[in-house]
Amino acid sequence: MREIFNQVKKIEYKGPESTDLLSFRYYNPEEVIMGKKMKDHLRFAMSYWHTLTGEGTDPFGQGTMVRSWNEITDPVEKAKYRVRAGFEFMEKLGMEYFCFHDRDIAPEGKDLEETNRILDEIVDEIEKEMKRTGIKLLWGTANCFSNARYVHGAATSSNADVFAYAAAQVKKALEITKRLNGEGYVFWGGREGYETLLNTDMNIELDNLGRLLNMAVDYAEEIGFTGQFYIEPKPKEPTKHQYDFDTATVLGFLRKYGLEDKFKMNIEANHATLAGHTFQHELAVARINGVLGSIDANQGDLMLGWDTDQFPTNIYDATLAMYEVLMDGGFTTGGLNFDAKLRRGSFEEVDLFYGYIAGMDTFAKGLKVAAKLIEDKVFEGVIEERYSSYREGIGKEIMENKVGLKELEVYAKENGVRNIKSGRQELLETILNKYIFN
Amino acid sequence: MREIFNQVKKIEYKGPESTDLLSFRYYNPEEVIMGKKMKDHLRFAMSYWHTLTGEGTDPFGQGTMVRSWNEITDPVEKAKYRVRAGFEFMEKLGMEYFCFHDRDIAPEGKDLEETNRILDEIVDEIEKEMKRTGIKLLWGTANCFSNARYVHGAATSSNADVFAYAAAQVKKALEITKRLNGEGYVFWGGREGYETLLNTDMNIELDNLGRLLNMAVDYAEEIGFTGQFYIEPKPKEPTKHQYDFDTATVLGFLRKYGLEDKFKMNIEANHATLAGHTFQHELAVARINGVLGSIDANQGDLMLGWDTDQFPTNIYDATLAMYEVLMDGGFTTGGLNFDAKLRRGSFEEVDLFYGYIAGMDTFAKGLKVAAKLIEDKVFEGVIEERYSSYREGIGKEIMENKVGLKELEVYAKENGVRNIKSGRQELLETILNKYIFN
Amino acid sequence: MREIFNQVKKIEYKGPESTDLLSFRYYNPEEVIMGKKMKDHLRFAMSYWHTLTGEGTDPFGQGTMVRSWNEITDPVEKAKYRVRAGFEFMEKLGMEYFCFHDRDIAPEGKDLEETNRILDEIVDEIEKEMKRTGIKLLWGTANCFSNARYVHGAATSSNADVFAYAAAQVKKALEITKRLNGEGYVFWGGREGYETLLNTDMNIELDNLGRLLNMAVDYAEEIGFTGQFYIEPKPKEPTKHQYDFDTATVLGFLRKYGLEDKFKMNIEANHATLAGHTFQHELAVARINGVLGSIDANQGDLMLGWDTDQFPTNIYDATLAMYEVLMDGGFTTGGLNFDAKLRRGSFEEVDLFYGYIAGMDTFAKGLKVAAKLIEDKVFEGVIEERYSSYREGIGKEIMENKVGLKELEVYAKENGVRNIKSGRQELLETILNKYIFN
Amino acid sequence: MREIFNQVKKIEYKGPESTDLLSFRYYNPEEVIMGKKMKDHLRFAMSYWHTLTGEGTDPFGQGTMVRSWNEITDPVEKAKYRVRAGFEFMEKLGMEYFCFHDRDIAPEGKDLEETNRILDEIVDEIEKEMKRTGIKLLWGTANCFSNARYVHGAATSSNADVFAYAAAQVKKALEITKRLNGEGYVFWGGREGYETLLNTDMNIELDNLGRLLNMAVDYAEEIGFTGQFYIEPKPKEPTKHQYDFDTATVLGFLRKYGLEDKFKMNIEANHATLAGHTFQHELAVARINGVLGSIDANQGDLMLGWDTDQFPTNIYDATLAMYEVLMDGGFTTGGLNFDAKLRRGSFEEVDLFYGYIAGMDTFAKGLKVAAKLIEDKVFEGVIEERYSSYREGIGKEIMENKVGLKELEVYAKENGVRNIKSGRQELLETILNKYIFN
Repeated sequence: MREIFNQVKKIEYKGPESTDLLSFRYYNPEEVIMGKKMKDHLRFAMSYWHTLTGEGTDPFGQGTMVRSWNEITDPVEKAKYRVRAGFEFMEKLGMEYFCFHDRDIAPEGKDLEETNRILDEIVDEIEKEMKRTGIKLLWGTANCFSNARYVHGAATSSNADVFAYAAAQVKKALEITKRLNGEGYVFWGGREGYETLLNTDMNIELDNLGRLLNMAVDYAEEIGFTGQFYIEPKPKEPTKHQYDFDTATVLGFLRKYGLEDKFKMNIEANHATLAGHTFQHELAVARINGVLGSIDANQGDLMLGWDTDQFPTNIYDATLAMYEVLMDGGFTTGGLNFDAKLRRGSFEEVDLFYGYIAGMDTFAKGLKVAAKLIEDKVFEGVIEERYSSYREGIGKEIMENKVGLKELEVYAKENGVRNIKSGRQELLETILNKYIFN
Repeated sequence: MREIFNQVKKIEYKGPESTDLLSFRYYNPEEVIMGKKMKDHLRFAMSYWHTLTGEGTDPFGQGTMVRSWNEITDPVEKAKYRVRAGFEFMEKLGMEYFCFHDRDIAPEGKDLEETNRILDEIVDEIEKEMKRTGIKLLWGTANCFSNARYVHGAATSSNADVFAYAAAQVKKALEITKRLNGEGYVFWGGREGYETLLNTDMNIELDNLGRLLNMAVDYAEEIGFTGQFYIEPKPKEPTKHQYDFDTATVLGFLRKYGLEDKFKMNIEANHATLAGHTFQHELAVARINGVLGSIDANQGDLMLGWDTDQFPTNIYDATLAMYEVLMDGGFTTGGLNFDAKLRRGSFEEVDLFYGYIAGMDTFAKGLKVAAKLIEDKVFEGVIEERYSSYREGIGKEIMENKVGLKELEVYAKENGVRNIKSGRQELLETILNKYIFN
Repeated sequence: MREIFNQVKKIEYKGPESTDLLSFRYYNPEEVIMGKKMKDHLRFAMSYWHTLTGEGTDPFGQGTMVRSWNEITDPVEKAKYRVRAGFEFMEKLGMEYFCFHDRDIAPEGKDLEETNRILDEIVDEIEKEMKRTGIKLLWGTANCFSNARYVHGAATSSNADVFAYAAAQVKKALEITKRLNGEGYVFWGGREGYETLLNTDMNIELDNLGRLLNMAVDYAEEIGFTGQFYIEPKPKEPTKHQYDFDTATVLGFLRKYGLEDKFKMNIEANHATLAGHTFQHELAVARINGVLGSIDANQGDLMLGWDTDQFPTNIYDATLAMYEVLMDGGFTTGGLNFDAKLRRGSFEEVDLFYGYIAGMDTFAKGLKVAAKLIEDKVFEGVIEERYSSYREGIGKEIMENKVGLKELEVYAKENGVRNIKSGRQELLETILNKYIFN
Repeated sequence: MREIFNQVKKIEYKGPESTDLLSFRYYNPEEVIMGKKMKDHLRFAMSYWHTLTGEGTDPFGQGTMVRSWNEITDPVEKAKYRVRAGFEFMEKLGMEYFCFHDRDIAPEGKDLEETNRILDEIVDEIEKEMKRTGIKLLWGTANCFSNARYVHGAATSSNADVFAYAAAQVKKALEITKRLNGEGYVFWGGREGYETLLNTDMNIELDNLGRLLNMAVDYAEEIGFTGQFYIEPKPKEPTKHQYDFDTATVLGFLRKYGLEDKFKMNIEANHATLAGHTFQHELAVARINGVLGSIDANQGDLMLGWDTDQFPTNIYDATLAMYEVLMDGGFTTGGLNFDAKLRRGSFEEVDLFYGYIAGMDTFAKGLKVAAKLIEDKVFEGVIEERYSSYREGIGKEIMENKVGLKELEVYAKENGVRNIKSGRQELLETILNKYIFN
């Protein structure tokens, strides 16, 4: 079969001093960090949509991306070509996972039956390529937001037919995810929200969202899909306000609908920032609640108010993200999916490689810095000392729930407040820099 | 006793055409709306802090407020004078409620014992004025954020002595709230958050926040305080990130710590907007979760990124807020507390009256518009029609949990999606305008 | 000829109490306000793009708009049909102006020659309809941002061919604007900015932007186009950072490139807010600098960080905008162009009417309120009194440039500061409300 | 004289591997970079206000900073003690410059005469310390925003007495800046803006701002002050909207009032971001307009909407800032003033050292990276190639103003658009990372 990205060879690790722009400087897949290979720590995944179907459109402009498949007119043929392109791309990057929505791998047909038939046809191709290459599916999902029918939402649509259609789409997506041995299944509720409260019954909509998730859990059990379910929070865009605003919101929702043991989070960096949180914050909230599942690795532009989905190149974010992952014991079913798209001006095919190399190298460097910070107990040491008053005396009694307001009043009257110490933020930031620069 | 605001007489309702700047144009306390007096719908409350101790400082400037008590040097005498001023002020506005923090009504002494003694002395004065005037306490609270000891938080401080001190302060504040027959007690966690994750153990901090709230609930039961507990969400400021980010976050927290039946929300308009939500959104989320408790009525400036706490004059916000309150059946223990401060440039005493009149008239008008919208079933009618497909056929089966993914797939294959209708946002906004203008 | 919007009759003014959803409640075109008809104050214009070619796509979803021309496949036929639709629409709304970009009225051909030929063909149709109906062109413009060739900008492209192409497009757009007796011509630099400074020479780019504008001015003179030139500021979107950030930035740019007498501003409400200003602020800055030209009337959602271009329904914004327009003596060449698009969920044709009625009625009401505020000298009176110290004594000497630091030091030492008065913001907001509600 | 910061010795450069927290790892003052010593590139300055008078208050809390001078009650004695503290602090950090406002170095007296007398007394002390240590004044300024008299602005106050008072204050501040051989003088218009347009005459206010600056320029000439004047842009805070919004706005203002040759910019990182720009953007705009003067080095928190003034530790910002400075030929009169304050939780004296070391090391590293990027012509090379079409053919003719719309139309019809190339953003970001990490 003809090579598609024929201008690019397999990307190799060549070390920090490499001047080969098409090499890794930090990502050395087999290098062992804290007892595990880098590739097993990072579990990088290709996002099918941005990589293979992203066209470079924006709200004010048409597509710019120059791709060898642009000229193929038959949509099914194009879809098959993209399967080959995707796997070749992953092989060249040494990437072991991918993620997809039903609608990026295959075009829709005239009705749901035909759509599902086409989908099966493409899944056959994907399955072959997976066998050939050993590449695995990190997670699958259903796109219940692009089609006009989802204009008012999917599970939260005001129209029951739409709910049913979305349910059917989720069923099929679960089936193909299972067939491809997907390690997880994601729900991103891009249209599960509202445009205006003036016409919205939020109560019904949230109940119905809970219903769809429960149905999915039940059906997974029925068909023996044992992958991890994830919810991917996002506060807004495309809708004015989305129900899965952030991790804390989703946790409250899951607890209300009895789903807290069934779902983990798929945290996206740029969704975190749109919600007013740092990437690390969202990961930390997920971690302490036992739901840090997987990551959509990208970055936003904090001067812009929309989801820019840029390839992640900020070392601070990558380091602190990997710090949270390592503190959580590392990924199990999850990984780092590059839900990142090239800037519209980076329209050449080789830019796809530059983009992924940028992201993979940044996270590889971030992993190394984070591992060193943990090995040296830099922040853990500070925290242990800082909260030490809770390991003895009145602090210990508080932690063991042995005292109430009355006992604490007696204590406060006798002791007042002693030994408050500086939080040392500036020093800690400088130490983090040292670990990054050296 | 000498009159303090002697340039202002009692503010009377004079109707929409009134040219008397010191009159109400819309707030007619005894007027009956939907079977209840306006004053009983609105339950306006004075915020002690902004009104009586706000000095007009900002991060770049000293105080500007010209007040008759500025020259009193003894802090206890000043506190007593302010009690008189506050009650005279409320009488002149016909305001039946107030709210306070322990530290705005009384200065701190050299230690907790003395502080509590001074507090009792001022509470004596307040109690007398309450008896004299019939004015009631909507809610009390403890200020666990201004004193330097709370630099790293109160219940979430890294120092156990601080936790104990905060607990003692909450205990006393509960006691005086009970003594003054307060109808509620608020927790606003102004410092319950973090400045940097580099030195923070979020897990311990959240557990400790849960502990303090549980202790408060237990102690209230012990002393027979039957008022409503509230949490007041705010996402940030003063800390970089606060744990009680918004209503959805707090709901998740309450569910985790077994507190969901004990707390309602005290929603502040400007806190909602800092979290990326409209005021109405926060109220609606609280309402559908059964926790719409009370309101801190003010407004922010959406071009500014901090809590401006302006007197509320936006009729859209006031109307939609009262709409949510009415849809919830009206306030029970809660009310509209004006957590609003004069602009620094509005430094004359008479501006206090202009500010309150502005807020009270805006909410009075909002109440009237909201009541009319409900009586005419404007939005309810739209919503009822919009979700009608869930009251029959497949929609009904979904709502009654009778179908799963398989049944819905069968349905979707047979029926596709029919009858999606416009959401009519522009029309609904125009209808809202009609109700406001006419 | 077949009627296109056959479900809607001509929209009539029926007064505030009208229950006919397809009537005006406030916009009464012939009603005289401050000596001028409402329609001559407001000079409403239809935006060709949103109204006739907007499809309801967003970055996450396909088009939703149901239009009678959706099925026409030949692009030139579709363009001609849209001309008829547009004029019928304007007639039914009693709208006397429209605005267009070259690319919304006609599709591109295989090269520039063919493109221009098609454009002329459509302009013929437009000209006929203008004659038939008496509807006029408020302004024309060239779309130098949608085509992929403008990926790095138009006048500010890093590629000189693109500059040349944009110049050719502007030339043709000027010619057709002149032919159609357009009263103005707008430059909106949607791609005139940068994505990253790492690859950008801002100096060359700004010089080139200045060059293109100077070329346009020269060519207009050559062909006798005497309409007003406008620049439409916007800070960002689609590019990360646009050069025409806001009015103040553009004023500095015009002064640098010797263009300050040639251009006025076309202020868009939602662009103002994206730049961190209120709509009124941008209008006021334009007014005091003598460049308040025309208005793109819409509104944004301040909780969202992108250009939502909603139909304007906020009465505060409409009132204060019309206040600035009236204070500037009213529109001359400019008007109120509804650069507003239906929400994606408002996809029915009748929603187009609801949207425009919403916007027109809001501005009509705003005009009436603003006129009353001016007739009563509400804010002018306050301002006159507030700055009165500059009309006598030392203030007068300052204004007449008769004193310097030394004289002022002498004065300050003798007099200190006297008579600072409250700014009365809360009172003024309440008075504004009174004028709106009554 | 007693040592004040007696727990800290002189901070020495000890190299990247140093584990001494009180050492420099990157700032090696005598090291030569691109032919100049690091210290002469960076020209670090201490900000008097945050460092010596910052108390750690915030809008919700009292001061936290533990300082040896907290107990001194006489304000003049405290001011003198702070002079000694400041110079000892700078000596220990090897810092050769400082910056001040009149009001941070000395307390106000009962009237302007007394205030000026006290100021002179403190200036005597400062002068002695400057002679003793060789430390120089980077710039001086007048604080015309903290005192209540400036509630409605200083030069833009609605009250002429306030204008006069501000003028007198500026006069005195110019005199002492001259006396201390200050290399510059800054105007930061903290209150030069408005709270609400409802009571504001923006036209008078801007004219008066222009007047004050012209008076200052005249007086400087009269007294022979030859230092550089700067304006420091900021968009908002403390006022709702400030006139010196950003560099572009100020450039337009200067051009309007004939001041463009008299002023450069003092760019503050956190002010840039509040205006919706990156730090680098503001520096680049200043550079290409010939007004890059000096820098207030700090950083904001992009999740927060106010001026956090944090010590700068972000290597990307520091690198790109130094890149702009180097591309501009380096500082002449300007320098890097740390207008940065410790987090409220970093309240110990030693944190002052940690904060400054953090900032100085970050900028030292940034300088080294920027110098290497320039030596290797990394971005310059990309830009040269990217705009190469403007150095020949039609591009050259455009740049030389030899063609107009007609010639360009001819060209475009013949040539179309050729050779648009990728902008390579992802690759450039990765190269920047390489220079930072290695």
